[in-house]
Amino acid sequence: MIRGRVKGRCWATKRIDDMPQGALLDVELENGTVLIAYDPLGCGVGEQVMITQGSVAAGYFKTVKAPIDALIIGSLDEDE
Amino acid sequence: MIRGRVKGRCWATKRIDDMPQGALLDVELENGTVLIAYDPLGCGVGEQVMITQGSVAAGYFKTVKAPIDALIIGSLDEDE
Amino acid sequence: MIRGRVKGRCWATKRIDDMPQGALLDVELENGTVLIAYDPLGCGVGEQVMITQGSVAAGYFKTVKAPIDALIIGSLDEDE
Amino acid sequence: MIRGRVKGRCWATKRIDDMPQGALLDVELENGTVLIAYDPLGCGVGEQVMITQGSVAAGYFKTVKAPIDALIIGSLDEDE
Amino acid sequence: MIRGRVKGRCWATKRIDDMPQGALLDVELENGTVLIAYDPLGCGVGEQVMITQGSVAAGYFKTVKAPIDALIIGSLDEDE
Repeated sequence: MIRGRVKGRCWATKRIDDMPQGALLDVELENGTVLIAYDPLGCGVGEQVMITQGSVAAGYFKTVKAPIDALIIGSLDEDE
Repeated sequence: MIRGRVKGRCWATKRIDDMPQGALLDVELENGTVLIAYDPLGCGVGEQVMITQGSVAAGYFKTVKAPIDALIIGSLDEDE
Repeated sequence: MIRGRVKGRCWATKRIDDMPQGALLDVELENGTVLIAYDPLGCGVGEQVMITQGSVAAGYFKTVKAPIDALIIGSLDEDE
Repeated sequence: MIRGRVKGRCWATKRIDDMPQGALLDVELENGTVLIAYDPLGCGVGEQVMITQGSVAAGYFKTVKAPIDALIIGSLDEDE
Repeated sequence: MIRGRVKGRCWATKRIDDMPQGALLDVELENGTVLIAYDPLGCGVGEQVMITQGSVAAGYFKTVKAPIDALIIGSLDEDE
């Protein structure tokens, strides 16, 4: 997994029908790259999160075939 | 997912039979890399889009086994 | 998908049994990286091609389980 | 697979329910990138490990569908 | 696929049970990155090889579910 920090929310009014309900967040990785990740945890701006990618991310959705290749799976404890 | 901006359309007259009908767009990522993505949404040049990759992209095609590893899944609201 | 230009053919006399018959081409990407891609289209040196990667590439082979993670799926029209 | 060196443990109290029990380690790759990998071997800080990624990593979990895309599969003998 | 040159063998006495028997080789890619790849061909140091990655690599193993995401599938003829 990779870690990143939530920068904000990302909106796409025009999108394919298969998109699951829920927040899409802009997450900045340590190298400056920004990914858009699906957030099932309700993370806020500034939170440091852990992201899983690829078909493993899509596998989180049990009842639909979601086109999601980046998923927030945890919020990292900052005092680690 | 990653974000990029549509640069134009890409044509391949000589191609394998498994290619689905529909537009293939050149999309420039924030780091300058250009991907070719399948566009089911009718996006235009200059539009900022969200792309999913890998087998997750191919999973969008329900009735055929499409050789597509980059799919536009949304057009990003620019006033975000 | 990514685009690249065919540089030449690549030969491997010593290889695993699962390799499908057909040409393996050296393809140079825009960033200078060289990939080896399976070519079902008969592309020649200098041709600009479109490549799909990963399990999506392997999915092209219907009757065998091919160890191919890069597949040429189209030859790009140069006057685009 | 890729090699890296264990830097420490990573904690996420707030996380999705699908997360398997077990340690998540920060592993620094040779290029300085840090990955978070699941560790079934009980590796310690400073140990050099071998990591497999993507759906191959998730396939390690037999009874659950784990959202793990980086898995430590071995500790490298340092006197190699 | 990508090409690289075999640098040596890699040993991991402490490893997960799912690891298949056989050699794990350090292979240096053209950009200097070193991957650890499973070698079913008996390649030696200095040999130039072709590697397939991800779930395609794991698919080579028919009877076991191997945690291998990099597989040597051919040794490149050097006089190409």
